[in-house]
Amino acid sequence: MKVLQERICQDGNVLSDTVLKVDAFLNHQVDSKLAMLIGEEFAKRFAKENITKVLTIEASGIQFAMATGFALQVPFVYAKKKKAITQSDDVYTASVHSFTRKETYQISVAKAYLKPGERVLIVDDFLATGAALVGLCDIVKEAGAELVGVGAVIEKSFQEGRGLLEERGIAIHSLARIKSMSPETGIEFIEEIGACKS
Amino acid sequence: MKVLQERICQDGNVLSDTVLKVDAFLNHQVDSKLAMLIGEEFAKRFAKENITKVLTIEASGIQFAMATGFALQVPFVYAKKKKAITQSDDVYTASVHSFTRKETYQISVAKAYLKPGERVLIVDDFLATGAALVGLCDIVKEAGAELVGVGAVIEKSFQEGRGLLEERGIAIHSLARIKSMSPETGIEFIEEIGACKS
Repeated sequence: MKVLQERICQDGNVLSDTVLKVDAFLNHQVDSKLAMLIGEEFAKRFAKENITKVLTIEASGIQFAMATGFALQVPFVYAKKKKAITQSDDVYTASVHSFTRKETYQISVAKAYLKPGERVLIVDDFLATGAALVGLCDIVKEAGAELVGVGAVIEKSFQEGRGLLEERGIAIHSLARIKSMSPETGIEFIEEIGACKS
Repeated sequence: MKVLQERICQDGNVLSDTVLKVDAFLNHQVDSKLAMLIGEEFAKRFAKENITKVLTIEASGIQFAMATGFALQVPFVYAKKKKAITQSDDVYTASVHSFTRKETYQISVAKAYLKPGERVLIVDDFLATGAALVGLCDIVKEAGAELVGVGAVIEKSFQEGRGLLEERGIAIHSLARIKSMSPETGIEFIEEIGACKS
């Protein structure tokens, strides 16, 4: 998605070979017009899939799930993060290990809002290690719903997340695929605009 | 807002005289079309205010800030909740006491995204004790920005939040003002649709 990649070059901040800050326009301050365009792009890419629900995880996936749900005219659900490991009968849960925060947390979705037969699109801001997205995929499977694919706003293609999802046969659409990056040389994208110095 | 109040009656769940569950359509599963209408309603009510930024708090305010920001064609910012009390130079922080969770947490907004001279509308899903909203107001003040008002999707008018904001001279627009509620008798609204049995 050209407009997104150009914006990453303009306002993104490459802190290291693995850390990209986009909190100026995606996940702290949010450009609401760009977020809406991102939702429309996901809706277009999965248009033939008869999606009935969009699923994401709090907090930074919510704006993109909102935009995608609105574009598809379906509801969205955001998984909650819990610290306590209180397994309740009325929620689906999965364990997610955060490599950046070096902790394992639980995510949960109320069973009432994810039913067998639903056709679910998962969206999130980043596809990197894939830990959170794999947790969401597990929850969709546990619910007996059909996973039609994963939409990531930004993919760090040099990390293992895409491989983990592809192993499960999941369709992935990432709108900005980063091949490599560094504070010195900037960002190299896999498609579209190529390389840039952010 | 009639359509919202009717939806609360239909799909809300009054668990006690103080607890209303709306996670079927507002803050776990989200009706994206309704959330967009809510954003348009806030935009309409504050249309003359030349708002430059919408501010909310993660996670359940994000969908409404997104919709309001899009309707006003301005960015939004969501304050982050932190457990650690690490005061950083580059963020504004406020302490918020959660009465339901019986804990005090810190909220923070990067200084880069809230500047003197900005005209800020705060939105959130609930106005109840007002604790989180007062924290957000403090951050706007600390930033030297202009607070034009607070928009709440649901107000529990029998709690102290509205009074706390009015004491500070803040304009408040709540789309569903609940005068009283109970599992036995249902919900009584202050305006529009009156009483209903949810």
